[in-house]
Amino acid sequence: MIAVDWGTSSLRLYRLDESGLVRERRRSDCGAMASTGRFGDVLAQETAGWNDTRILMCGMVGGRGGWREVPYLDCPAGNAELAQGMQRIEAAGFEGRELWIVPGLCDTVSDTVPDVMRGEEAQLAALLDVLPGGAHLVCLPGTHSKWVTVHDGLIRRIATAMTGEVYAILRQHSILGQSMPSAEVRFDAYAFDAGLKRSAQPDGLLHHLFGVRTSRLFRLFDEAALPSYLSGILIGHEIRASGLFSQSPRPVQVHLIGNERLLSSYAHALTALGIGVQRHPEELAARGLHALWARRVEAGTAA
Amino acid sequence: MIAVDWGTSSLRLYRLDESGLVRERRRSDCGAMASTGRFGDVLAQETAGWNDTRILMCGMVGGRGGWREVPYLDCPAGNAELAQGMQRIEAAGFEGRELWIVPGLCDTVSDTVPDVMRGEEAQLAALLDVLPGGAHLVCLPGTHSKWVTVHDGLIRRIATAMTGEVYAILRQHSILGQSMPSAEVRFDAYAFDAGLKRSAQPDGLLHHLFGVRTSRLFRLFDEAALPSYLSGILIGHEIRASGLFSQSPRPVQVHLIGNERLLSSYAHALTALGIGVQRHPEELAARGLHALWARRVEAGTAA
Repeated sequence: MIAVDWGTSSLRLYRLDESGLVRERRRSDCGAMASTGRFGDVLAQETAGWNDTRILMCGMVGGRGGWREVPYLDCPAGNAELAQGMQRIEAAGFEGRELWIVPGLCDTVSDTVPDVMRGEEAQLAALLDVLPGGAHLVCLPGTHSKWVTVHDGLIRRIATAMTGEVYAILRQHSILGQSMPSAEVRFDAYAFDAGLKRSAQPDGLLHHLFGVRTSRLFRLFDEAALPSYLSGILIGHEIRASGLFSQSPRPVQVHLIGNERLLSSYAHALTALGIGVQRHPEELAARGLHALWARRVEAGTAA
Repeated sequence: MIAVDWGTSSLRLYRLDESGLVRERRRSDCGAMASTGRFGDVLAQETAGWNDTRILMCGMVGGRGGWREVPYLDCPAGNAELAQGMQRIEAAGFEGRELWIVPGLCDTVSDTVPDVMRGEEAQLAALLDVLPGGAHLVCLPGTHSKWVTVHDGLIRRIATAMTGEVYAILRQHSILGQSMPSAEVRFDAYAFDAGLKRSAQPDGLLHHLFGVRTSRLFRLFDEAALPSYLSGILIGHEIRASGLFSQSPRPVQVHLIGNERLLSSYAHALTALGIGVQRHPEELAARGLHALWARRVEAGTAA
């Protein structure tokens, strides 16, 4: 089968064998936004030479403005609900094959404003398949970082923080970016830790951000260290507001899912705050989609 | 005399009579950024027809990259120190006239990261001239909002929040702006209050920002109400982090200095939080520059 993680700005494709092992992988910039109106053509092109019958997809491909909107499922939900909620679509050029889209999840109860995910549920499905019962906390860092509470195999709470996007627009469009190198720079652990510490002070993120500017005016850091300082402030605020420290008992570890580079920063921050981490790669999505299909087979709803 | 408030992106000029009353006012887009390398020409052009001998200036004109860098004075500082710290500059085309620049202020003691102001000290000078002794809290909302603690005529603490700039870049460059009208919209008190309430919840600004998106996905607000909701969240976070509520005794009122439109939002928010406000117009800067000059005359350092 083919597993497709089709996000807003990127497309990841995996070819799996029967047991769910990834045998080939591809990646493209044709995210859902760039594929509007021509999803079928893009998929045909990107899977050229892969003749597997079954194609399972997750991500913004199933969102509003995607290929086909698949409504969010309500939390709490686990792999049984996700597998059951998959929708099959027909598309020209894919006659004789099976295209499925996995629904996103929404959490309308644990906060006064609803929260959602679309795509991350496939990565979580792989984790749900192997985690023991009880409570687990999962963080999926990114443009929009997801903090997810899992209990006895069910996803119960979703909380999203706009950390990655705020970091990017501050660097590109705010006064803070003016004193930073425009290219990506090496992670500076000293500056990152200073930002992390700063985030513990009570005077708020909006004030801490201005301090990135004054810290440069007063030459507390080199220009090359400022991105790491900013990153430490933002990730520190995200982690401290995640509820991690107010839970009782406090979770001893957080599961981190994502690309290696981003995970290093989060792992560094959590470790500095005395929390253990367990890392999982992005391509967990492929394993998750395979696990969801296996559920449908078990339940006799595979066709 | 002529009082000039020369900020990064705008230039405000006032012609005052002997008693300090504003007789004429002008405004231009030739802020310090647009005037780089030609400050004298811009000033000559913008003051055309005003032949007053004395020209007092404040703002980024005295910053790094301005006309002449005038170093920050350390807090605590009051009108005596500001008047004493004024620097006279010579410029071609202004022979026989007097050009002065007021220094900015920096606070390197009340926080682990220094904070600064440049321009706002002129507005504060007008207030310092009339406030009774004791403690006062002043807020100057804007791109970079300043929260200033005054005690017995001295500016003791400066804390800046990047509220206005973060609001602007979120609207223009983030996913949140995509579901908002691009033009400025009418203030929506219901949405603003909802944002203000949201800011009291413990899960952090970065999460509350994402809620602006989901609140639209779930149709909690109209598109036209979203800017007010976002504004309520940001201003709420700014005010709650200002230390206002942790001071003992809690200040009964805050002095607000700025343009009418922005002050309305802050006055609305503070009133909703049970804090009294006293509003002062932007052009307080003119009165402040006049008051500083009077100090130099009194001290016999006017020449």
